Amino acid sequence: MSVIVVLGAGMMGSALAVPLADRGHDVRLVGTPLDEEIVLQMAKDGVHPKLGLKLHDAIRPFAFSGLGEATAGADALALGVSSAGIAFAIEHALPLVKPGMPLFMITKGLAYEDERLVTLPDLLAAHLPEAARASVHPAAIAGPCIAGELARRVPTCVVVAGRDAASNQRIADLIRTPYYHPFPTTDVRGAEVSAALKNAYAMGIAFALGLHEQRGGSAGSIAMHNLESATMAQAIFEMRAIAKELGGLEETVSGLAGVGDLDVTTNGGRTGRFGKLLGLGLGRDAAIEGMQGATLECLEILGVLRRAAAAGALGSRGLTPLPLLAHMMDVALDGAPVELPLSRFFGGSPR
Amino acid sequence: MSVIVVLGAGMMGSALAVPLADRGHDVRLVGTPLDEEIVLQMAKDGVHPKLGLKLHDAIRPFAFSGLGEATAGADALALGVSSAGIAFAIEHALPLVKPGMPLFMITKGLAYEDERLVTLPDLLAAHLPEAARASVHPAAIAGPCIAGELARRVPTCVVVAGRDAASNQRIADLIRTPYYHPFPTTDVRGAEVSAALKNAYAMGIAFALGLHEQRGGSAGSIAMHNLESATMAQAIFEMRAIAKELGGLEETVSGLAGVGDLDVTTNGGRTGRFGKLLGLGLGRDAAIEGMQGATLECLEILGVLRRAAAAGALGSRGLTPLPLLAHMMDVALDGAPVELPLSRFFGGSPR
Repeated sequence: MSVIVVLGAGMMGSALAVPLADRGHDVRLVGTPLDEEIVLQMAKDGVHPKLGLKLHDAIRPFAFSGLGEATAGADALALGVSSAGIAFAIEHALPLVKPGMPLFMITKGLAYEDERLVTLPDLLAAHLPEAARASVHPAAIAGPCIAGELARRVPTCVVVAGRDAASNQRIADLIRTPYYHPFPTTDVRGAEVSAALKNAYAMGIAFALGLHEQRGGSAGSIAMHNLESATMAQAIFEMRAIAKELGGLEETVSGLAGVGDLDVTTNGGRTGRFGKLLGLGLGRDAAIEGMQGATLECLEILGVLRRAAAAGALGSRGLTPLPLLAHMMDVALDGAPVELPLSRFFGGSPR
Repeated sequence: MSVIVVLGAGMMGSALAVPLADRGHDVRLVGTPLDEEIVLQMAKDGVHPKLGLKLHDAIRPFAFSGLGEATAGADALALGVSSAGIAFAIEHALPLVKPGMPLFMITKGLAYEDERLVTLPDLLAAHLPEAARASVHPAAIAGPCIAGELARRVPTCVVVAGRDAASNQRIADLIRTPYYHPFPTTDVRGAEVSAALKNAYAMGIAFALGLHEQRGGSAGSIAMHNLESATMAQAIFEMRAIAKELGGLEETVSGLAGVGDLDVTTNGGRTGRFGKLLGLGLGRDAAIEGMQGATLECLEILGVLRRAAAAGALGSRGLTPLPLLAHMMDVALDGAPVELPLSRFFGGSPR
C-alpha cells in the first residue's frame, strides 16, 4: 500500500483514483482551482458530480490549497489534469516531486517548443527539481479509457509510456487491478503521438456521419460505414507516418494507444459530434457554436501540428504525405467544406 | 470499355457490378445456381431483391446456364461468390480464363491444404488452365466494403492484392470510380490474413456488447466501449503476428484490409450479433440457434485456424501468443463461457 496523490479532480483524474483505491492505496484526490465544487461535493457525500457516482471510501478529496499537506509523505504523484492544465501542474506540483518518486499522468498531448514537438513526459522531465532529475521518469498512460467507464470498473487495457523501463514497470504494478491492465512501453513518442492525434482524427472519421445525414440518410445499416472505416484506416496510416518521423514506433500506433484509443474516441464523445456537424456542412464557426463551449482538443492539436509542419518539424515533405490531416486543418481551422481526398489516401498521388 | 463477367449475383458480387458499370464497362452478372431467383427478378425489372434497389442498366443478368455465353468475348473475370462458393467457382469459371485476362474476386478466406494455409489468390493460381498460368495473376479485393453501401455508391477505399504489380495496377484501373478507390498491393498474405480473420475477431470484439447487456446495461455512453476497443487493439496485434508468421506484412494489417475492414465489420452485421449473443452468456448452441441459419464465416475460419495451429502452421508457439484467438475458439467452437484474458493480451504473461 502506498500514498498516492492525484492532482486534478475532473472526470479522468477522479476515474484514475478508482483503480488506485481498489489496489489498496491511500488516494488523495486534489482538485485544481477549477474543481472546487467537485471537491466540496465529494467532501460532503463522496459523490463525484460529473461522474455521477459515489467513489471509493479510500479516496480523500482535497481542495487545491491542501496540495502541500496531501503531498507530504506521498509515495507517488499522478497528474489528472487535461492538456490545458499541464502548465499549471508543472508550476505547482512538480516542485513537490522527490527523488525516486513514481510520476505518471493521464494527460495527453504534444507541446510545440523551440520549433519542435515535445511529448508531455519529456516536457515534465525537463521541469523536474534538480535533485529528482536522475531518478524520476515521468510516464503517460494512454489507450482506450473513457472516464465514466473506468470509474465504473469496466475492464480495459492501457499502456504506461515512459523513458525508463524499470520505472514503467513500477508504475504498472502500482495501478494494476483485475479490471485495469497496464502494459509498459518505453516508446513515449509513439504513444504520445497516438494519444494526441486521435482527437483530431476522430473528428475526421466523424465527417462521414454528417455527410450521411446531409444526404438524407438516417442511422441504420445502410449508412456510410465504408467511408468511416476507410478514413479510420487512413488515420492510422498517417499517425504511423508521423510517429515514425518523430522517432516513435509504428507498432505502438497500431496498438492500444493508437487503434484502441482512436476506436473508443470515435464511438462517442464530443470530438465525434463536432466532426459530424462539420460533415453536415455547418461550416467551422457554426459547428463550434453548436458545441456550446465544449473543450475541443482537436482544434488545439491541429493548430500545434500546423505550426510544426510549417517549421519542418513533421519532415521535409510537410503535410504532402498527410492528406487527411491537411484536409482536417482546412476544414476545422479555415472553414473549408468537407471533401475527403480519398484518391490521395494511402500514398496515392493526386488524380 | 471492357466486357467484364461477374460470377455470383449475391449481394457482394452484384454490388461490385455497380462501379464496373459506372466505369463504362459492359457488365455480365452471372448467377450461381443459388442465385436463380435474383437473376429472374433482375431480368424482369433490374431490381436486385437482396440489395433492394434497381442496378445500373449496363449490368446484364445471366442465369448460370449462360456462363459460357457470357464469358465468350469477355475481357476480364470477377468472382463474386462467398468463400463457401470458391470451389464451385474454381470448377466452373477457371477453365474459361484466357491468357492475360484480369482475374479478381471479392471472395475472402484462407484455405487449409496439405497442412498449410493458402490464400485464395494462390489457390486460384494453382487451378488456372495451363495456358493461362504464366500470364494471369489472380487478385483479391479487400478493405471496408459493405455491399449495400457500395451498391449505393457510398465512397470507400479498397486494396487490390495480387502477386503481380502490373496486373494489380491493370485491375485497379478497370474498377476505379470517383467513389471506389482501389490501392494495389503485392502483399497477398497480409491482405488475405486480414480479410479472413476479421470475421472471427469482429465476433470477439462484440463479446463486450453482450457482457454489457448481461450486467444490466443498455446502449449509451456508459457502456463497455473501453473493453471493445482494447479487444480491437488486441485483434490487430494478433492479426499482425499471424500475418508476419505467414510471410505477410504487418503494415497491411494496420491498413484498409485489417483495421479498415475489422472496423466496418464490428459496426454491424451478423458476426457482431453472434458475438453479442455469446457475450450475453447464451452459450454456443443457443447463440447459433439465435442466428436462425445465417452464415457464420467466423466459425469456418476459427475451425481452419484450429487445424492449422495444431499442425504447426501458425508457428512453433501455436496459439500461445494469440490468447484472444484461443479464447474465441474455446467459446465459439467448444461452448466455453466468455471471459476475455486481458492480462495475457499484448504479449503479457499469464498472472
